[in-house]
Amino acid sequence: MTDSNTTSEKPWGGRFSEPTDAFVERFTASVGFDQRLYHHDITGSIAHATMLAEVGVLTAEEKAQIIEGLEAVKADIEAGEFQWSVSLEDVHMNVEARLTDRIGVTGKKLHTGRSRNDQVATDIRLYLRDEIDVIAEELQRLRAGLLDLAEREADTIMPGFTHLQTAQPVTFGHHLLAWYEMLVRDAERLLDCRKRVNVMPLGAAALAGTTYPIDRSITARLLGFDRPTENSLDSVSDRDFAIEFCSFAALLMTHLSRFSEELVLWTSAQFDFIDLPDRFCTGSSIMPQKKNPDVPELVRGKTGRVNGHLISLLTLMKGQPLAYNKDNQEDKEPLFDTVDTVKGCLKAYADMVPAIVAKADNMREAARKGFSTATDLADYLVKKGVPFRDAHEIVGKAVAFGVAESRDLSEMTLAELQKFSDIIAEDVFEVLTLEGSVQARDHLGGTAPDQVRAAVARARQQLG
Amino acid sequence: MTDSNTTSEKPWGGRFSEPTDAFVERFTASVGFDQRLYHHDITGSIAHATMLAEVGVLTAEEKAQIIEGLEAVKADIEAGEFQWSVSLEDVHMNVEARLTDRIGVTGKKLHTGRSRNDQVATDIRLYLRDEIDVIAEELQRLRAGLLDLAEREADTIMPGFTHLQTAQPVTFGHHLLAWYEMLVRDAERLLDCRKRVNVMPLGAAALAGTTYPIDRSITARLLGFDRPTENSLDSVSDRDFAIEFCSFAALLMTHLSRFSEELVLWTSAQFDFIDLPDRFCTGSSIMPQKKNPDVPELVRGKTGRVNGHLISLLTLMKGQPLAYNKDNQEDKEPLFDTVDTVKGCLKAYADMVPAIVAKADNMREAARKGFSTATDLADYLVKKGVPFRDAHEIVGKAVAFGVAESRDLSEMTLAELQKFSDIIAEDVFEVLTLEGSVQARDHLGGTAPDQVRAAVARARQQLG
Amino acid sequence: MTDSNTTSEKPWGGRFSEPTDAFVERFTASVGFDQRLYHHDITGSIAHATMLAEVGVLTAEEKAQIIEGLEAVKADIEAGEFQWSVSLEDVHMNVEARLTDRIGVTGKKLHTGRSRNDQVATDIRLYLRDEIDVIAEELQRLRAGLLDLAEREADTIMPGFTHLQTAQPVTFGHHLLAWYEMLVRDAERLLDCRKRVNVMPLGAAALAGTTYPIDRSITARLLGFDRPTENSLDSVSDRDFAIEFCSFAALLMTHLSRFSEELVLWTSAQFDFIDLPDRFCTGSSIMPQKKNPDVPELVRGKTGRVNGHLISLLTLMKGQPLAYNKDNQEDKEPLFDTVDTVKGCLKAYADMVPAIVAKADNMREAARKGFSTATDLADYLVKKGVPFRDAHEIVGKAVAFGVAESRDLSEMTLAELQKFSDIIAEDVFEVLTLEGSVQARDHLGGTAPDQVRAAVARARQQLG
Amino acid sequence: MTDSNTTSEKPWGGRFSEPTDAFVERFTASVGFDQRLYHHDITGSIAHATMLAEVGVLTAEEKAQIIEGLEAVKADIEAGEFQWSVSLEDVHMNVEARLTDRIGVTGKKLHTGRSRNDQVATDIRLYLRDEIDVIAEELQRLRAGLLDLAEREADTIMPGFTHLQTAQPVTFGHHLLAWYEMLVRDAERLLDCRKRVNVMPLGAAALAGTTYPIDRSITARLLGFDRPTENSLDSVSDRDFAIEFCSFAALLMTHLSRFSEELVLWTSAQFDFIDLPDRFCTGSSIMPQKKNPDVPELVRGKTGRVNGHLISLLTLMKGQPLAYNKDNQEDKEPLFDTVDTVKGCLKAYADMVPAIVAKADNMREAARKGFSTATDLADYLVKKGVPFRDAHEIVGKAVAFGVAESRDLSEMTLAELQKFSDIIAEDVFEVLTLEGSVQARDHLGGTAPDQVRAAVARARQQLG
Repeated sequence: MTDSNTTSEKPWGGRFSEPTDAFVERFTASVGFDQRLYHHDITGSIAHATMLAEVGVLTAEEKAQIIEGLEAVKADIEAGEFQWSVSLEDVHMNVEARLTDRIGVTGKKLHTGRSRNDQVATDIRLYLRDEIDVIAEELQRLRAGLLDLAEREADTIMPGFTHLQTAQPVTFGHHLLAWYEMLVRDAERLLDCRKRVNVMPLGAAALAGTTYPIDRSITARLLGFDRPTENSLDSVSDRDFAIEFCSFAALLMTHLSRFSEELVLWTSAQFDFIDLPDRFCTGSSIMPQKKNPDVPELVRGKTGRVNGHLISLLTLMKGQPLAYNKDNQEDKEPLFDTVDTVKGCLKAYADMVPAIVAKADNMREAARKGFSTATDLADYLVKKGVPFRDAHEIVGKAVAFGVAESRDLSEMTLAELQKFSDIIAEDVFEVLTLEGSVQARDHLGGTAPDQVRAAVARARQQLG
Repeated sequence: MTDSNTTSEKPWGGRFSEPTDAFVERFTASVGFDQRLYHHDITGSIAHATMLAEVGVLTAEEKAQIIEGLEAVKADIEAGEFQWSVSLEDVHMNVEARLTDRIGVTGKKLHTGRSRNDQVATDIRLYLRDEIDVIAEELQRLRAGLLDLAEREADTIMPGFTHLQTAQPVTFGHHLLAWYEMLVRDAERLLDCRKRVNVMPLGAAALAGTTYPIDRSITARLLGFDRPTENSLDSVSDRDFAIEFCSFAALLMTHLSRFSEELVLWTSAQFDFIDLPDRFCTGSSIMPQKKNPDVPELVRGKTGRVNGHLISLLTLMKGQPLAYNKDNQEDKEPLFDTVDTVKGCLKAYADMVPAIVAKADNMREAARKGFSTATDLADYLVKKGVPFRDAHEIVGKAVAFGVAESRDLSEMTLAELQKFSDIIAEDVFEVLTLEGSVQARDHLGGTAPDQVRAAVARARQQLG
Repeated sequence: MTDSNTTSEKPWGGRFSEPTDAFVERFTASVGFDQRLYHHDITGSIAHATMLAEVGVLTAEEKAQIIEGLEAVKADIEAGEFQWSVSLEDVHMNVEARLTDRIGVTGKKLHTGRSRNDQVATDIRLYLRDEIDVIAEELQRLRAGLLDLAEREADTIMPGFTHLQTAQPVTFGHHLLAWYEMLVRDAERLLDCRKRVNVMPLGAAALAGTTYPIDRSITARLLGFDRPTENSLDSVSDRDFAIEFCSFAALLMTHLSRFSEELVLWTSAQFDFIDLPDRFCTGSSIMPQKKNPDVPELVRGKTGRVNGHLISLLTLMKGQPLAYNKDNQEDKEPLFDTVDTVKGCLKAYADMVPAIVAKADNMREAARKGFSTATDLADYLVKKGVPFRDAHEIVGKAVAFGVAESRDLSEMTLAELQKFSDIIAEDVFEVLTLEGSVQARDHLGGTAPDQVRAAVARARQQLG
Repeated sequence: MTDSNTTSEKPWGGRFSEPTDAFVERFTASVGFDQRLYHHDITGSIAHATMLAEVGVLTAEEKAQIIEGLEAVKADIEAGEFQWSVSLEDVHMNVEARLTDRIGVTGKKLHTGRSRNDQVATDIRLYLRDEIDVIAEELQRLRAGLLDLAEREADTIMPGFTHLQTAQPVTFGHHLLAWYEMLVRDAERLLDCRKRVNVMPLGAAALAGTTYPIDRSITARLLGFDRPTENSLDSVSDRDFAIEFCSFAALLMTHLSRFSEELVLWTSAQFDFIDLPDRFCTGSSIMPQKKNPDVPELVRGKTGRVNGHLISLLTLMKGQPLAYNKDNQEDKEPLFDTVDTVKGCLKAYADMVPAIVAKADNMREAARKGFSTATDLADYLVKKGVPFRDAHEIVGKAVAFGVAESRDLSEMTLAELQKFSDIIAEDVFEVLTLEGSVQARDHLGGTAPDQVRAAVARARQQLG
């Protein structure tokens, strides 16, 4: 098979009077990137041939020849012995041309009752379904790692932040479970997306269905699809599933970007809340002291990539009339790269999360400062009868005094505290401790260590 | 309530030594757009007060006062007698301040055990859940309209296009069902999104939960939520549900943009496939003959708006550390505008679709030209034993001849056709008719009129 | 003028046989947002009338009547006495209808030789040109503020970061000048954009020009445009200038988001590098100690908004055939909101930057730690003949030792240092000081205080 | 050079106690895509070495060795004999390691006074500057082709559309000049962007400048940069130029998407306005009659890709603190792919545009229908004293009559026309001709053939 540029090699040359321009041939060919689909293309073709035989369009002999031939082609590809031809445009024609080389005229019968339009739509769905399953597993692994770490750190106290200002003490385990919750939703969305991926367009042919007596339920069953699609025009032009997958991916990457931001903050000298092992970091070619949190930074950066692909696909589909248009060839690269990016980032995180080492002393010291128990003082006043808004005002003034004096609330004397409200009594110092603060938030979703442990237990059960 | 700019009016002024800058106050206030949430804010507050009474934090008397006060505030707002104050920042503080004006110090107790962080998260979810239900109904109405039209036009033949080139004859009903299928997926996605909207963050308080003995299952039940959220840090910072809704919306708008593109094409003088009633069109201030398909054009244009809002929200959340940051205030306007846009576009389409008038003669004439039955001829040859690829080549040459002669395949003589393959016989002219062509695609998803009618019947059942 | 819904009120009702659907009328009307253009619309109309009189299409008397009428309409609008009508669709027809109400039939002559298509394109350009000039001034003010602050802090030492890890000492002034450089490019881009905004589409009429003997150079001159546009079809459909402006804005907001990220970090308890005055911060309704950097956070969040608007407009224009389509009505809201956002954020920053208070001791202490002079040690070795890559390795080992011992390089003894390389001598301690480190980077663009001062001086001159 | 995974091979291994994780190494390496920069990397290094020798940091001998070594490395790469190593991370370290293999210890001196941070920023700018120049040439070629075609078709009449409804007759040449104007703006924007690309970051070193006595004006001159950058922190973290280039590209692609939409419409059977030669089209594997406008469709689809890359980069930079972060490694692939896409699409268009064949008869026939001269009739009435708005109404009624009767205005009798206004006289038929209509729009920017020819002449001069 050579790359000759003749019309007759094309599967559609009949009505054309001049060969395709050489640059146009390269420009419009997809084989450079869609060869990745070879495996699913061949799987789809085998199912198609099997169905054609069952309904009598192919003989048993023809079917056997085709399947044997396709298996041989697959073996060639996997052995690196397949020469892809740009002039054959795409993976489908490359495979089919080689099949015909191998088994002769019977190979030409494989394309009966289908078109590249439904064939490629089927291939992408098969590919994406498999990748979704791989991604679901990596997600699962990351979630399990988070639960282990959260359990380990259920009692570790750190400052909880809002506006990156110290807000209230929380436990590190509780913080990690916030990450976990984001991933729970991602996993649900992935599963919801999979439902809509796993529907079979094969049989739509070019756009209107085919005149052969095909039985689409057979191919759907052979390929593990939940059902055939309902409308042929929609089948060949629908790329919703790719967009929905990229929407899932954009949200997942958004979550990973948030985790990454925190890891980068926490490994800074200023926070110094955690250590990442050397094997997840790299250094600087010029600054000998540097140990950079490359993995989180890179993952954070890759968010842009996936958001971009989502926009690519939405822009691609905007305003396209039915049915298939060549524009749609542009669906593959954004999807492939999104899949690769998500898999890589999840693997990196699933490997790295269990290796996070909390510096509990630093976390605790940070929580101790910054008036993190001010809310506890306000709540204390409320429980003694002060309306919340007034309690807030009182504590605000105490804090202003503390800022001026550089002292935390727990470092003031009772007399000093009583200057702001004479309701304050000796028992106040209990609520001003870090342990008291976190334990007091003891309800579903709260940061109390026991709640964290209970949440881990529930999550483990859910995770299965 | 006046707009005075004193620190003491703020719910947080205690520790501050100078008033907020006047411009900063306006710049950071959200009341200009979040007042839209007043209804859900008050609903949430009533449930919160009820729960606080059930767990003994409020007395029955206090609860009654608060609820009566809140109802009065709502009545004021709905009567247009509420003066919103920018210095009170947001809808929450405006409502609460007015409540306290009305019922005195008890009003200040409402904020016990919650924060604006979990309050606003709850409000948006209540708001969005209601809007999702409205949108689901409009989607339903549009789908029903499409089914009626598809059934009416199940036998109307038009050219099916790929690459906007005549491909094969299809029925107009079949084409409309392709639109329908897109909306089926949209409706499913909306429902999937609703599951994740309908979870209650209330009780997360500022970020860590609260020290009051709240019972979140009570408030969840009162507000119709499926369950409370699992983690307080996540609860106040999660905006996934808004992003997921915008992802749904972007795909829906993408579909509407595709329908719009086709309506615009079909009402052009060149296609002239349909008529839109005058009431859905507008004219030109300068060209007296113009009748423009404004509604589809505008809907197509609004796709950009929704894609933009999706990117806004994804960009907003990228790299945000836990828990709540002020950035999140920017979540509302994109979400609100997405909701409004989707509702408006769906209403316009649901009103307009039943009024589409097919120009069946023009459609048929267009299908008759353009060699739309060339594939049928190829299939004919295959059924007589010619391998598909060879049949394709034969028909390609016949078409080239037809292009040169300006004659369709059905306009050639048998002798002429036989020049390309002597297998062709008198029975060929049957497969070259439009009716023959569409009826031959008689399998699930195919364009045969009976398949279209069966698909409508199935869809009606599904739609309920 | 009432909001009656009759076809005859429309400027295009002649060929229509039924009135516009009431919902469609609201759905397609733009007057709700384009009334903002009234000033520029009237300015454009006055110039148009003036030109029509100069070329003899209007009499001097008619021109005078029209101008007087338009001025009166403007006065009405500015006095709040104008009742906008949705059934008149847009600002143009509202103004013109009122004009005709006022001055009678002569008012109807104003629309001679133009169309709403070229009219609105002209209005938006006039509007945007004015706003660009306002934005340019705010940018100028922010830049001037940065230069003052940079000069004041030219000697203040802080840690320079890469990967948010301490890298090398820099001066705070130098850091601020990095912000300055971003704004220089923004200002250049804004000016480049303005060139392409300031070209006049008026005279393109609906799409093809007009049959009246208009002189477009007159209107261009009267309106301060650099020149009339070259092609009428392009003139009415071009929205490049709006997209280019949003591209400028997206980059500017990206810069402000980066400044914001740093301000948020620096005001955290962990960094504690600066103070923002209370008037730029707000508190928490629940946590009495909080002082949140709301302004930077909100500005950072608004980046998403502007990126979203850019995507809206790009999506809007994708694939639109010539010339004007109704889709284009969607150009205004994203543009208006981008303008408002940019103006607000720049004002907030220009007000806030001069009020930033550096905590020089904290900055210095942070720089002292973290081996920030490790590169200086490597350079020291190189200057004594060690190849850079080897010097890097030596210092790397010294740092590893320091990490283990919790001591900075400057805290080691000479003997300890010599264990890593016997080339190290007493003079090493000079290069290990912070002052020595920053002063040594004494070339154009380097962080040496004198370079910072020189850069400020050059920038002041450039700023004018 | 093997791919061994030892810390000592890294340029920064000194302080690290365990090797990089094998997956992390692959995940964080950029050599897979940045090897494309080898040429510019070596060019930059040669200039750097030359400067180092001029200021006395290297000897003349060392410089000569380094340059000879680098040239040899380049030759190896271009001969395909270079083995890229993932463990060496990027193009810079790969080249330098090979250099040291070749010339020994002197190779290690090349990195004196620079860092990979300023090195990569320099490489990308050099690369992008070269690509901009290539793109500028292709743009020029496309523009020239458009002018030739516009001149050839200056008299060819076609319908001008708004809302895809026939609006007024225009000439095909005039329409093509609208395309031309878009490209003029693109070319201007590209040049404006180039100014900001062509500034040299080299010398910023890691982030703060260097302690070596470098002279950045020398390297800037050697590398053809306009000047060195002003601030080292900004220099290593600035990616504005890449974003600005992608903004340019997104607008260019938007324009090409609009041209493409029109070409697709025009080659449809319904419009049939032009022919594209077979060599720019492809066929269908199943429908033998198809000839698809693949090139315009694919270009239209690629718009999404470039919009996506723009969003990738904006998202990437959002909220990044100074100075360099690993996130920035994600800048390259979107930029490279944008460059490749733009070059490919421009080449395809520059090749294809001259081959467009207008079907003048079909265009004319389409213009003749659809009441395209209705505006001319209104103008005729105005010139006889009817206010424009009234004339519009009169013609609207005449059109309504024509729609009912299926006759164009020019096909009505004088008596019929006079039923709508008795001002209409025999001379009306002149203004109702297509030629009369286009010739009457005879002002700068109008569609009159003479204006088109004059515009072509002006444009040719401008194009040079």
